[in-house]
Amino acid sequence: MKQPHSIEYLQQLVIDRLKEKAGKIGQTRPVNLYQPIEYTLNMGGKRLRPVMLLMACDLFGGKVPQALNAAIAVEIFHNFTLLHDDIMDHADIRRNQPAVHKKYNENVAILSGDAMSIMAYQFLLKTESPAIQKVTQLFSKTAMEVCEGQQYDMDFENQTSVNIDDYLEMIRLKTAVLIAGSFKMGAQLALATDADADRIYRFGINLGLAFQLQDDLLDVFAEQEKFGKKTGGDILANKKTFLLLKALELAKPEQKERLNHWLTKKDFDPLEKIAAVKQIYTDLNLKKISQQKSDDYYLAALNELQAIELESDRKKPLILLAKTIMKREH
Amino acid sequence: MKQPHSIEYLQQLVIDRLKEKAGKIGQTRPVNLYQPIEYTLNMGGKRLRPVMLLMACDLFGGKVPQALNAAIAVEIFHNFTLLHDDIMDHADIRRNQPAVHKKYNENVAILSGDAMSIMAYQFLLKTESPAIQKVTQLFSKTAMEVCEGQQYDMDFENQTSVNIDDYLEMIRLKTAVLIAGSFKMGAQLALATDADADRIYRFGINLGLAFQLQDDLLDVFAEQEKFGKKTGGDILANKKTFLLLKALELAKPEQKERLNHWLTKKDFDPLEKIAAVKQIYTDLNLKKISQQKSDDYYLAALNELQAIELESDRKKPLILLAKTIMKREH
Repeated sequence: MKQPHSIEYLQQLVIDRLKEKAGKIGQTRPVNLYQPIEYTLNMGGKRLRPVMLLMACDLFGGKVPQALNAAIAVEIFHNFTLLHDDIMDHADIRRNQPAVHKKYNENVAILSGDAMSIMAYQFLLKTESPAIQKVTQLFSKTAMEVCEGQQYDMDFENQTSVNIDDYLEMIRLKTAVLIAGSFKMGAQLALATDADADRIYRFGINLGLAFQLQDDLLDVFAEQEKFGKKTGGDILANKKTFLLLKALELAKPEQKERLNHWLTKKDFDPLEKIAAVKQIYTDLNLKKISQQKSDDYYLAALNELQAIELESDRKKPLILLAKTIMKREH
Repeated sequence: MKQPHSIEYLQQLVIDRLKEKAGKIGQTRPVNLYQPIEYTLNMGGKRLRPVMLLMACDLFGGKVPQALNAAIAVEIFHNFTLLHDDIMDHADIRRNQPAVHKKYNENVAILSGDAMSIMAYQFLLKTESPAIQKVTQLFSKTAMEVCEGQQYDMDFENQTSVNIDDYLEMIRLKTAVLIAGSFKMGAQLALATDADADRIYRFGINLGLAFQLQDDLLDVFAEQEKFGKKTGGDILANKKTFLLLKALELAKPEQKERLNHWLTKKDFDPLEKIAAVKQIYTDLNLKKISQQKSDDYYLAALNELQAIELESDRKKPLILLAKTIMKREH
């Protein structure tokens, strides 16, 4: 078997194909439908999910060019969910640019999103593969689960008590299944065995959970320069992350009272609230507890990869990707 | 070849399957995602598009039970478009019940709609057929065109001049392609030749256009009891239908001025406006012109059906369906 492709090579393939396909989409009529799609696809991003699909395909000896349309499909679908989520979450900025519902309007954002979801299927269905029906079924199941995750996320905002298992199930659906699904689609296109396809799926689920827990942690504890965005956003929004839920679980009466004080306070100095809540998290040793939970998932992910019976050289890019996502240097 | 199934038989099949599948969907978690889907699918309706798919499948000797999931897919997709259109059009009532965005809220309507669009694919992809990839591609192309039609429809509201060809293209996309696509999907599942599949597609396009023109006409000229809903709605909303566009084209200066007066008037008595505009349409002979245009498409539809080389007995249910849709007694 030949050497696997590098992450950078596959990323460039995705970027080039996206540029080729999405570059002129905005000229299609009706322009009010297609321009926002071009705008969205040109916002950038690391294109991780399509790269994951191609890497899994490559791992199992599949033909990467044959999987490229499926990879683009996953990226278009992911961007569709961001577009509609931004409407629902009233998030006006996406990657430092106005969100579609702000740049255009809400109707445009709804309909262009709908069109992107269909367009994702159109790219996927260009794929020539004996596994196409199975792959499209997996894609659909995954897409449905992402909707379920978004619904749970919105439900949690109005729910007074959310337990940690509920939270983990929510991030599994909202974040991890699309990562896992992308890997598994690539494996299926490479005609991997069902057992191997399931292993790389579980690799993706565990990696996705590890990543999300790490991301929640960084939102509170990161050095701002390294993290790339302002820390404390989740604390200000009372977002029910692993940290907050675990804090509510572990807090002694006095700490719980202090936490609830900040959760219910209407007028506050943002920096003061961040510092106060962060202090409670620190007192409860949550940085370590949370990091440990993330590490557990990360190791579980690597174990799944380990179990795939292929020479370890072929797995190197995937291990590197996992490290990069987790911002690990070791 | 055996006798074709009746419309009623196929309609009952669709209703039963929908009841079986959609009846308990609202119990799936998260309920805020799935309950609105059950609510939408239980609103009723004539289930015309799935019946059309099954009729085309039956016409070409395909197995009807094998096409049932595809039929359900088309119905779910159609109901998804109504759900999202109602948000965009600020339409608060659907089939005498509160629209989803009113009964629940707008976020629920956006996300449940997204889920329905994916669910449509899930049903379609259950289909076992050598034509499944082709059918799913056609379904996607059709779905995309329906989005384009909705965008044109919204664009027209803000456009000062819309010509009749633009209008016909809009209703082709918004209404006719899903009818035509349903027929063609049924034909493809029955493994009809491409030529025959294209004929039944054109049958559907022409029937869809004839139907929409007729519907526009009835909105103005129907006897209220027979039409089943209030007449004059399009006139009150200044909707750019074939009638209004043709009137603007044919009107003499004095009539044009009178028409523009009513189009721009802010305060008016509804019945007075309806009567005045209707009078202009009558003076311009638009009832006949519009009926003629609809008849032309209707006959073109029947000619396409005629061209399919099958014994005429097999085509009888389709001819009956066309007549029923057009509310014709002869």
